[in-house]
Amino acid sequence: MTSAVLPSAPHRTGAPPDDLAAAAAAALAAVRERTPLVQCLTNEVTTNLVANALLALGASPAMAAVPGEAQELAGVAGAVLVNLGTPGPDQRACVAPTVAAAAGAGVPWVLDPVAVGVLSVRTRLAGALLAERPAVVRGNASEVRALAGHASGGRGVDALDGVDAAADAATAVAALTGGVVAVSGPVDLVTDGTRTVRLTVGDPLLTAITGAGCALGGLVATFAAVTDPFTAAVGASTALGVAAERAARDAHGPASFQVALVDELYRLTPDTLRAGVRDAAAVTA
Amino acid sequence: MTSAVLPSAPHRTGAPPDDLAAAAAAALAAVRERTPLVQCLTNEVTTNLVANALLALGASPAMAAVPGEAQELAGVAGAVLVNLGTPGPDQRACVAPTVAAAAGAGVPWVLDPVAVGVLSVRTRLAGALLAERPAVVRGNASEVRALAGHASGGRGVDALDGVDAAADAATAVAALTGGVVAVSGPVDLVTDGTRTVRLTVGDPLLTAITGAGCALGGLVATFAAVTDPFTAAVGASTALGVAAERAARDAHGPASFQVALVDELYRLTPDTLRAGVRDAAAVTA
Amino acid sequence: MTSAVLPSAPHRTGAPPDDLAAAAAAALAAVRERTPLVQCLTNEVTTNLVANALLALGASPAMAAVPGEAQELAGVAGAVLVNLGTPGPDQRACVAPTVAAAAGAGVPWVLDPVAVGVLSVRTRLAGALLAERPAVVRGNASEVRALAGHASGGRGVDALDGVDAAADAATAVAALTGGVVAVSGPVDLVTDGTRTVRLTVGDPLLTAITGAGCALGGLVATFAAVTDPFTAAVGASTALGVAAERAARDAHGPASFQVALVDELYRLTPDTLRAGVRDAAAVTA
Repeated sequence: MTSAVLPSAPHRTGAPPDDLAAAAAAALAAVRERTPLVQCLTNEVTTNLVANALLALGASPAMAAVPGEAQELAGVAGAVLVNLGTPGPDQRACVAPTVAAAAGAGVPWVLDPVAVGVLSVRTRLAGALLAERPAVVRGNASEVRALAGHASGGRGVDALDGVDAAADAATAVAALTGGVVAVSGPVDLVTDGTRTVRLTVGDPLLTAITGAGCALGGLVATFAAVTDPFTAAVGASTALGVAAERAARDAHGPASFQVALVDELYRLTPDTLRAGVRDAAAVTA
Repeated sequence: MTSAVLPSAPHRTGAPPDDLAAAAAAALAAVRERTPLVQCLTNEVTTNLVANALLALGASPAMAAVPGEAQELAGVAGAVLVNLGTPGPDQRACVAPTVAAAAGAGVPWVLDPVAVGVLSVRTRLAGALLAERPAVVRGNASEVRALAGHASGGRGVDALDGVDAAADAATAVAALTGGVVAVSGPVDLVTDGTRTVRLTVGDPLLTAITGAGCALGGLVATFAAVTDPFTAAVGASTALGVAAERAARDAHGPASFQVALVDELYRLTPDTLRAGVRDAAAVTA
Repeated sequence: MTSAVLPSAPHRTGAPPDDLAAAAAAALAAVRERTPLVQCLTNEVTTNLVANALLALGASPAMAAVPGEAQELAGVAGAVLVNLGTPGPDQRACVAPTVAAAAGAGVPWVLDPVAVGVLSVRTRLAGALLAERPAVVRGNASEVRALAGHASGGRGVDALDGVDAAADAATAVAALTGGVVAVSGPVDLVTDGTRTVRLTVGDPLLTAITGAGCALGGLVATFAAVTDPFTAAVGASTALGVAAERAARDAHGPASFQVALVDELYRLTPDTLRAGVRDAAAVTA
């Protein structure tokens, strides 16, 4: 899908992505109907929020992270999340068999390369995991640039680089994995290396809580259990962004915002998500 | 205690269990007065919620889960909780000496067999632990059926089986341990193999958050520090259920429900709990 | 700084500590401007709250707790937190190289000796760490007394001893480390062995949630990234206390209090903190 670039809205195409909006809405309806099992190897700092965000959207999250158990669910799950935020010995022992079980069963898996490029253990681990063809890689600009081998000024989970600075890196990573790359930031970018969508949705309070990015990784996995990876990344990014915009309305600060964010994920309807994608998305290449 | 079954309310006896209600209320008063130390080996996903739920009810929770420390508190605690939700190497190394320290000191301990029957490591561990005579086993129907060796369609912490499907299993597990079994669900069931109480209390939002079952396990342990195991299971189940009903009134979704749930546990009075048991409980055998 | 003790307010000097109040306010402004990286080895029970409290105050918290990674950030961070609440094998492997990296780079580090004196593994670890000269030790009275070798009736994170019972112990620990000791309680005490400040600020609900002390340790580290350890301890204790007083106003219980506490840390201004220190602090020696 290519498109002309309009002068007054550099990244916006002439036609709204109605098909993408409809597909995202249908995916949310499918999540609510099927309650997909999502097996998560996640981040000890944010596990609780990720589990609650997935429950709120409609998934059945499992956080089985013990060697010998992690892979048992991966092969029968709807999707698998691998978040590298706290890659301790147990998690490292789980990652390879979990990803292998998912791959062997045709279960899509999502890689969230938290703080890759800054810390050494996870950077090596993430590099090796790219060869296992994650359906979606979800990171901030610094992380995606690091995955692609670009220099980065990142210092953990902050996104110091803008999403545009990561566009080439995202395309490069997508070419490497054959999958989709979702770059989070004030504007989100989703690409499969050919198609690229930018999403202008969300609220700055998402950066004032720990775990918004981790939750997004889990939401992408949830959507990936019921739809294609590109729609999954767009649907999840928009779902979180729309929920954030609604949550920010009455929030007194980041903690009340987080409570409202999960509530709004629970209250999100397919129709609202469809409208959200139509408002937020611009197909740019 | 046996009772006739009334035609119009199949599981309800003619007389409300005033003695049980009074005992539960007295136990809550004792918790508030004595602040029992409850040593918890718990689930990494939900540790924070369990600790806060126990503080709210009036306990002094300790989450000492390091080999060499876990058993130090078990022998001097009022009660011990062993939740198998994330049975990593450290927890597995702690479980046996912790349970042994509790048993040696006459401290009641509660087993929460999270996802037993679905995942292999914890299923083996739980089987071995039944021989250590937990004062209370608290699980959902799938988990209790798995403990009893029944086939189950469970897939983690979901309760796919209704509580009635687990009644025989609960009786079998109680016969094995000599203790009490509490089965959670839309209707809760508590049995010691002879006496059985069903409790109709709670709110569906309890299934929309992670950790409600884990919190209940901790609440059962808290009550078990000050009363007999049967009253403990009835009191804790009703306390959580009544708090849930109150929390659901103004909740906008699962996260605001969870905040209100802990607040309501904090605000729960012995009189409210007494009324809750009277309203919710039906002695059925 | 020495002062006369007024009869009507035993611990209050004649002159309010305007310089200390101004220094704390300037430090908060510096945190907001510089977003210091604070590397935290923290407590699995409360990691999420600590991260969110630090984000709310204005820090960039990193919870890198994997051997091989923990020390990578310590040398480039603004400050380091070592909380001994859950000293498992991984954390124990991280502590020494993390503290060494901080010391080697001149980065201040804060020791939070959770439940020291009650549990053996952490008690030994904390004893060894005192020799590494933490800039600030932050504990409750029982913990500080245990560090100083006094007998204690502590049973975990409860503070059974009042702050006055720990004043001599705090002075002794400060003499040992050459740093500052902050004792938390209904009244907080901060000393460097020469100067002592008592702070009357906070709310009893701080003891009804898990992690308030852990959060305070992290806030001390955040302030220590931008100011001297004494001002850091006073500023952080007052910031948490003022936020708690505001949070308690509309709280319905401990969970809504915790949400509001983080919100209020986010909303705290340097002017409010300056007024808070002036109202709360009494220089007593």
